[in-house]
Amino acid sequence: MSKVLITTVPFGNVNRYPLDLLEKENISYLVNPHGKKLTEDELVDLVGDCEVIIAGTEPITAKVISEAKNLRMISRVGIGLDSVDLLAAKHKNIAVSYTPDAPAPAVVDLTMGLMYSLIRNTHQANIELHQGKWHRYFGKRLIDCTIGIVGIGRVGYQVLKNLKALGCKQILYYDKNVRLEEDKSKQIKYVEKEELYKNSDIISIHTPLDFETKNMITTKEINLMKKSVYLINTSRGGIINEADLHSALVEKSILGAAIDTFEIEPYNGNLAQHNNCLLTSHMGSMSFDCRTKMEIEATEEAVRFINSNVQECPVPEEEYKMRVHN
Amino acid sequence: MSKVLITTVPFGNVNRYPLDLLEKENISYLVNPHGKKLTEDELVDLVGDCEVIIAGTEPITAKVISEAKNLRMISRVGIGLDSVDLLAAKHKNIAVSYTPDAPAPAVVDLTMGLMYSLIRNTHQANIELHQGKWHRYFGKRLIDCTIGIVGIGRVGYQVLKNLKALGCKQILYYDKNVRLEEDKSKQIKYVEKEELYKNSDIISIHTPLDFETKNMITTKEINLMKKSVYLINTSRGGIINEADLHSALVEKSILGAAIDTFEIEPYNGNLAQHNNCLLTSHMGSMSFDCRTKMEIEATEEAVRFINSNVQECPVPEEEYKMRVHN
Repeated sequence: MSKVLITTVPFGNVNRYPLDLLEKENISYLVNPHGKKLTEDELVDLVGDCEVIIAGTEPITAKVISEAKNLRMISRVGIGLDSVDLLAAKHKNIAVSYTPDAPAPAVVDLTMGLMYSLIRNTHQANIELHQGKWHRYFGKRLIDCTIGIVGIGRVGYQVLKNLKALGCKQILYYDKNVRLEEDKSKQIKYVEKEELYKNSDIISIHTPLDFETKNMITTKEINLMKKSVYLINTSRGGIINEADLHSALVEKSILGAAIDTFEIEPYNGNLAQHNNCLLTSHMGSMSFDCRTKMEIEATEEAVRFINSNVQECPVPEEEYKMRVHN
Repeated sequence: MSKVLITTVPFGNVNRYPLDLLEKENISYLVNPHGKKLTEDELVDLVGDCEVIIAGTEPITAKVISEAKNLRMISRVGIGLDSVDLLAAKHKNIAVSYTPDAPAPAVVDLTMGLMYSLIRNTHQANIELHQGKWHRYFGKRLIDCTIGIVGIGRVGYQVLKNLKALGCKQILYYDKNVRLEEDKSKQIKYVEKEELYKNSDIISIHTPLDFETKNMITTKEINLMKKSVYLINTSRGGIINEADLHSALVEKSILGAAIDTFEIEPYNGNLAQHNNCLLTSHMGSMSFDCRTKMEIEATEEAVRFINSNVQECPVPEEEYKMRVHN
């Protein structure tokens, strides 16, 4: 029986080092044989007697945790913890670690690219030219857009810094905790969420998914926005309500969207009906370097825990507190 | 009979001011009724007795010029002059003006977006998700790519400045005339064209199309490049040989390309067979602000010439000299 279950896929493809490390330490492992994000039931079937899960974003629910008799640790490849029932884990004294810094630079790049594509309709022209249609789209220039960033964590802050470096004239941000130093040029401005929704030409979401952010953007919030707004979500599915986003696209109450993360993945829903909805396959962290870093960090943490019960990057206490409020 | 023939389309859509200006000055005009880039024959049919062409990129050949008995001026909406037989125009004492500064900022934005899309395969994931396929692509980070810029004019220079502002570690450039001040950080480096081809992860073309740059990149040059290179052309079709680019994509001797300009437009060729070839419809200048500026500048120049024979933005003498060498 394998000691370690690796659920996230692909794993060890770009750099085999994490697998080599497990082998060197004589730690037996099993890589998710389904080759895609697991359902709760698939995970229950696979988890068996494993002691550690090197985990993606599959649902590690109370049920999974109760079935995993020998589970002692969850080592998340990535930052989001919405998929893990932290309180159930704590209750069974299961350690949880994560890799909060590694994915950010790759998510930033993806977000920048989505902004540029949206404002020039690059993605639409590309689909159409591949179908033999030639239409010259008009668009906006990035520096002239009012860009609203919700969440100034590792990703949101770097997106903001990039936009500033590129000379963007008006960047609005909202964060429930963070206030940046005042920007005397007025290029960067803190605003309440509603004001951000009302005034932005592009809105980009960079929050975790938790009880406060689930369905943060529904028809009600969309109705506050400009009809010419572009919405971007490279954080977690479910923060922008997908059904409401679909309705907004049908009713043309927004100009377009770019969505990398979905309520159910792999995604196969009705946002694909809209050519003005740029869709990517939860690729935020998928640069060679960031993905490799995440896999190595999560594996090293698992090995450390197996060999000496030490965690270098445990999930912070406040994450557990957020769940109690839920 | 109309005094002014406006061949470029769309025209006056975003901002009607150029058409209002002509009407206010009692200058009769005809807008290209075909709604697409004209062929030489279509242009000959339309040009009739017009005195001025407010021109797009359609071929204003010696034949067109000889048929256009009353033509006194060509006012190009844009910067490229490859479509105009300048020597034939000069021979018939036809003035030629252009709008060299107006399109650049929009072309820069499009180019930035194409770079970000290419390195993360955003465009491919988008096509596939719209077809119900989920594949998570790996990619590179922009700052880690060696980016080669060919041509440091209005567009190339600003692309380089943006990349520098974003922290890109290695930017190579080649220009037949321009040498930038030496960059002590070694972030930006002048190299000969061959060295640029050999060492770049992304190559972006920002030259005019002339006898020196036509077919600048053929199979021979592609064979110098990394197999992992991405090629970008937002300048003019024909600089990268399209047939050779198609072959390179078939043979996987490059990783991908993003092409906005084509030898024949509207484009309907075999690059559309490749999902790793991002295609846009000559949209470089198509931001609302830049396009409006181009149309206004070209129309004001035409009105100025009609009313008082004055040109504020004539094509520079060196452009004519380039043609003599041809």
